[in-house]
Amino acid sequence: MFRFDLQHESNGARRGVFRTPRGDVQTPGFMPVGTVGTVKGLTIDQVAATGADMILGNTYHLRLRPGHETVARLGGLHKMCGWDGPILTDSGGFQVFSLGALNKVTEQAATFRSHLDGSKIELTPEHSIEIQQALGSDVAMVLDHVIALPAEQAVVEDALARSIRWAKRCRDAADRPEQALFAIVQGGLDPELRRQCATELATMPFEGFAVGGLSVGEAPEEMYATTAVTTVHLPVDKPRYLMGVGTPRDLLENIARGIDLFDCVMPTRNGRNALAFTDDGPIKLRNAVHREDTRPIMEDCPCLACRHSRGYLRHLFNANEMLGPILLSHHNLTYYGNLMRQTRQAIEEDRFHAFAAGKLRGWGYEPMDAVA
Amino acid sequence: MFRFDLQHESNGARRGVFRTPRGDVQTPGFMPVGTVGTVKGLTIDQVAATGADMILGNTYHLRLRPGHETVARLGGLHKMCGWDGPILTDSGGFQVFSLGALNKVTEQAATFRSHLDGSKIELTPEHSIEIQQALGSDVAMVLDHVIALPAEQAVVEDALARSIRWAKRCRDAADRPEQALFAIVQGGLDPELRRQCATELATMPFEGFAVGGLSVGEAPEEMYATTAVTTVHLPVDKPRYLMGVGTPRDLLENIARGIDLFDCVMPTRNGRNALAFTDDGPIKLRNAVHREDTRPIMEDCPCLACRHSRGYLRHLFNANEMLGPILLSHHNLTYYGNLMRQTRQAIEEDRFHAFAAGKLRGWGYEPMDAVA
Repeated sequence: MFRFDLQHESNGARRGVFRTPRGDVQTPGFMPVGTVGTVKGLTIDQVAATGADMILGNTYHLRLRPGHETVARLGGLHKMCGWDGPILTDSGGFQVFSLGALNKVTEQAATFRSHLDGSKIELTPEHSIEIQQALGSDVAMVLDHVIALPAEQAVVEDALARSIRWAKRCRDAADRPEQALFAIVQGGLDPELRRQCATELATMPFEGFAVGGLSVGEAPEEMYATTAVTTVHLPVDKPRYLMGVGTPRDLLENIARGIDLFDCVMPTRNGRNALAFTDDGPIKLRNAVHREDTRPIMEDCPCLACRHSRGYLRHLFNANEMLGPILLSHHNLTYYGNLMRQTRQAIEEDRFHAFAAGKLRGWGYEPMDAVA
Repeated sequence: MFRFDLQHESNGARRGVFRTPRGDVQTPGFMPVGTVGTVKGLTIDQVAATGADMILGNTYHLRLRPGHETVARLGGLHKMCGWDGPILTDSGGFQVFSLGALNKVTEQAATFRSHLDGSKIELTPEHSIEIQQALGSDVAMVLDHVIALPAEQAVVEDALARSIRWAKRCRDAADRPEQALFAIVQGGLDPELRRQCATELATMPFEGFAVGGLSVGEAPEEMYATTAVTTVHLPVDKPRYLMGVGTPRDLLENIARGIDLFDCVMPTRNGRNALAFTDDGPIKLRNAVHREDTRPIMEDCPCLACRHSRGYLRHLFNANEMLGPILLSHHNLTYYGNLMRQTRQAIEEDRFHAFAAGKLRGWGYEPMDAVA
């Protein structure tokens, strides 16, 4: 029921289509993040208008609120939030690590306390799959053991080995043909651990592979290098998803290294904070310089914000009006959506390098080797 | 350039069309409030979809932020917020009264301190018109002297006389044919003062007449009685606007007493607070009873909220997600818009009384005499 059609390659950048029972996902593609069943600030029609094919839901957050059983009784995540296309859910592993101050990991489970009410929750690989089945996502993620970096080599290796064992347990538990399961490659910034993990997971029957454990504070160059040493060991005929990434620059640099899918809160979170992405780099719309600027953020941008002047947008943020965050979230997701659309076309036309180099220079970056 | 076509009357309820250079306003009609140039939480397309013909902007708020000169430099209020239809601006009189703790009124001006930065601002009738001209609204309101009630008879009479003198000064200052000017009838709950004020203002060339000074804490029955004794003294061939009103019940009871236009923050403010209007009375969507309710707020409602379950809406408010206030603001304005559309049809078909009585009973009220 799931298939990845790799249509074209251009020096490492891949143009493909991930086929799912709920529709095709064009790759490279960006998934807006709908943490608790809503992409913050936008109606679901507005999300669709940004060009997104697939959106993301967070298992940890939905498990706590409204609860996966409630989601199921409301008809599942798709019906609840009104999104007909494919949805990917993460496994909760990252949030247990990042939010669960009191988390404890054993071979059996990650145990943590809810950041909402302090209640104790045991997340086993099997329970993570059970939650994701109740949510009814189209793509589920395996539960992984995420650790803080840097860490002792022994700690990294222990977490890595556990993540592989948990991936197997998830694969065994995930028994619904209409729900794909993606594995997650860990291994920090160590090329040898990344190779080991990717190689081992690649022997198992997953419908896709994610690169995890990045975008956690490392330098961009470290991220890009780690992506490169990971993707080379992944099957070419399966989609590759770089979790939690990133800036527009991160997207192009990682696409150049063989990544197909991304998700990140950056477009919406930055939008709520008055920062708009453009081809000339980000604009801070709270600044007084925009006060009487009649120009839109970007000419020819089809988003809802660019129907208005920068002066109006600045005023909305200055007056703490909800419409400011709404409009800028829509602009930024539209910017990401268009960037992916343009990227796909550039790959198809064998001009990805020139395209990416032009965008990177516009943002103020020297292109890295892979896209120079 | 402005004309009011009274098309049909049904026992006091009027069906009309207020023609403006920027389009027709069907009456009875409800104007969503766009305080500082945005109907809180909604894009301008979403506002239009609720069935609104005309929206309102607040002169006091726009004078302070972003400033009327900035609005003018951004192309005026229409261009700034993207609304092509007619816009009505109030005069600032009510906000000077309700927000300006340090206000002082002389014959020349109302002087007050900004609630934002404490700066001292002098609002004369002429300055109010100047601001409204800079904003570029289609309908301007006269500056009136609003006082707290109850008050000594001498105080009420003094403010009333001043309001009439200020109305004349506004009429003299308002010299743009493309901007209509509405007078405001004051007089508290005193029928004789209301008669005096309405009669005197009716001798002057205003394009419409407002009933002011209501919805300030009086009982509904007092409001309705005051409306009735006021409208009877107003010209039949001009639109009548009841300022700052009200609940769905208030709308129908006042339409029965000859009112054509309304504005109120109630649909949006209540929407942000999780209260949804329905034909069976309001629903509080934070309540746990809605947790797993798969029904929409109302069947057959075309708004954005009613595509979702009550359980989802409850979850959005429970999780403090922006989408909750967005969706409920849209529902409530759609409910008001549909109520006005249904009311117009009922008047046209000479069944307003039966229609209004049915709605009132659904909301839990005994119809008052006028619509019994």
